[in-house]
Amino acid sequence: MRTVYVNGAYVPENEAKISVFDRGFLFADAVYEVTCVLDGKLVDFDGHIARLRRSLAELKMTLSVTDEELLAAHRELVKLNAITEGLIYLQVSRGEADRDFLFPAEGTPATLVMFTQEKALVKSALADKGQKIMTADDIRWRRCDIKTVQLLYASLLKNEAKANGVDDVWMVLDGQVTEGSSNNAYIVTADGTIVTRPISNDILAGITRASLMRCAEEHQIKIEERPFTVDEAKAAKEAFTTSATGMVVPVIEIDGVTLGDGKPGPVAKRLREIFIQFSRDAAI
Amino acid sequence: MRTVYVNGAYVPENEAKISVFDRGFLFADAVYEVTCVLDGKLVDFDGHIARLRRSLAELKMTLSVTDEELLAAHRELVKLNAITEGLIYLQVSRGEADRDFLFPAEGTPATLVMFTQEKALVKSALADKGQKIMTADDIRWRRCDIKTVQLLYASLLKNEAKANGVDDVWMVLDGQVTEGSSNNAYIVTADGTIVTRPISNDILAGITRASLMRCAEEHQIKIEERPFTVDEAKAAKEAFTTSATGMVVPVIEIDGVTLGDGKPGPVAKRLREIFIQFSRDAAI
Repeated sequence: MRTVYVNGAYVPENEAKISVFDRGFLFADAVYEVTCVLDGKLVDFDGHIARLRRSLAELKMTLSVTDEELLAAHRELVKLNAITEGLIYLQVSRGEADRDFLFPAEGTPATLVMFTQEKALVKSALADKGQKIMTADDIRWRRCDIKTVQLLYASLLKNEAKANGVDDVWMVLDGQVTEGSSNNAYIVTADGTIVTRPISNDILAGITRASLMRCAEEHQIKIEERPFTVDEAKAAKEAFTTSATGMVVPVIEIDGVTLGDGKPGPVAKRLREIFIQFSRDAAI
Repeated sequence: MRTVYVNGAYVPENEAKISVFDRGFLFADAVYEVTCVLDGKLVDFDGHIARLRRSLAELKMTLSVTDEELLAAHRELVKLNAITEGLIYLQVSRGEADRDFLFPAEGTPATLVMFTQEKALVKSALADKGQKIMTADDIRWRRCDIKTVQLLYASLLKNEAKANGVDDVWMVLDGQVTEGSSNNAYIVTADGTIVTRPISNDILAGITRASLMRCAEEHQIKIEERPFTVDEAKAAKEAFTTSATGMVVPVIEIDGVTLGDGKPGPVAKRLREIFIQFSRDAAI
């Protein structure tokens, strides 16, 4: 049985509980992060915590736990659950108060929850095979830059993908791809340039996205930040997604159209290798 | 201390807990209803339960508890908490499972939570005085017809209203008012016609809205269902909102523009009286 962190306590997962009055449960008034564990170490912990702090600030939410304490708790969970490869999920909500749209009184402590999932990240059947993508309208709220738990649409889309025999969904706003249901979306053009949508309120500023851009630069691979259409994606040489737990995953089909020869493309495969090595080297 | 309903058990509120793995907490994968209590009886219980069933169906969520059991639980909570006037909040989430965007295995029981709030509904300082409204872009997801707990934006807006010294916010999509942060929005035109936005994915089909339309019809008050602009609202003779707990609340100011003489208008006041009587008569 896993050990779960709840507001400073390490408890068995079946005792990991929050109040029904928690604002995360009643109002989706909560943000989260997912940090990967590779070789028992944390991948880009600083990046995730920086984004967490930004999400909290955007929502005027206060968390009294320090970055150092968060790091110690992550490491403690890795140890207690003997995680070599997997992830740590962290969620902060605005805490517990009788139901009211208005924020609770100042000083109401935030709720902080963390748990682990064991998961093979480097060895990935999906990355080996490549993923099939369908597209759907992006009807989410227009502050997708904040990593809130308002994930119902993403969840519905993942289930729709499964029902349609594909692996995931790319969302489309005003004719252009925003991002995947839980990842950033990329295409590779005929001349080998990687294209991905620029950061705005319409997408999450992926931590893996930022690392990938650094990796690409170091390896002289050109990245262009601009929106692209579904048609452009279907005609692309390659496509792929990035996310913390998926890292780099090639795309081989979009809305029934096969990309290239229907196998993971060389750019995506190379970037996956580069990124895995980069993550191993930088993990703390 | 209140008694709260959690999955069939009646427990003290400080013991009313759910798992941190509940999908309501992790994915906002949950829907809710708020039913008013007047004179210790339930107002339009059938309407709320019908809408709950619709929300569940839209999200392919299964709740094994019957309508009769829900009614019995509502009545039990009214009794246990000695509620004469107030509300019962009900929330259903897709239940508890290790975090995954894909729905849990079939047969995973939904989580059902209910609690009461004591609250004066008939006597209302806000209704007597009339509410001041500001407007803001409606950036919510585009399935506002489903009563999900994705209420973060509504909560942010209520706090923004408070910070701006007003009472509430009307949201605006493509130049036209959709609805209030937790209510339906209406204006009264020069000839005494009530105008409100038609039902679509952009607004919640208010149970109070439906009852109000029935009341208006019975009293030969004309209601027109069409979208209206903020400018039209500012120039209107009167304006008001409806919601389960607010019932009918007059609006006296929109974005700093005073409506009429700055006092609750006669149409809104009359409708409030009619609606309160209607609710008392129909409560079970």
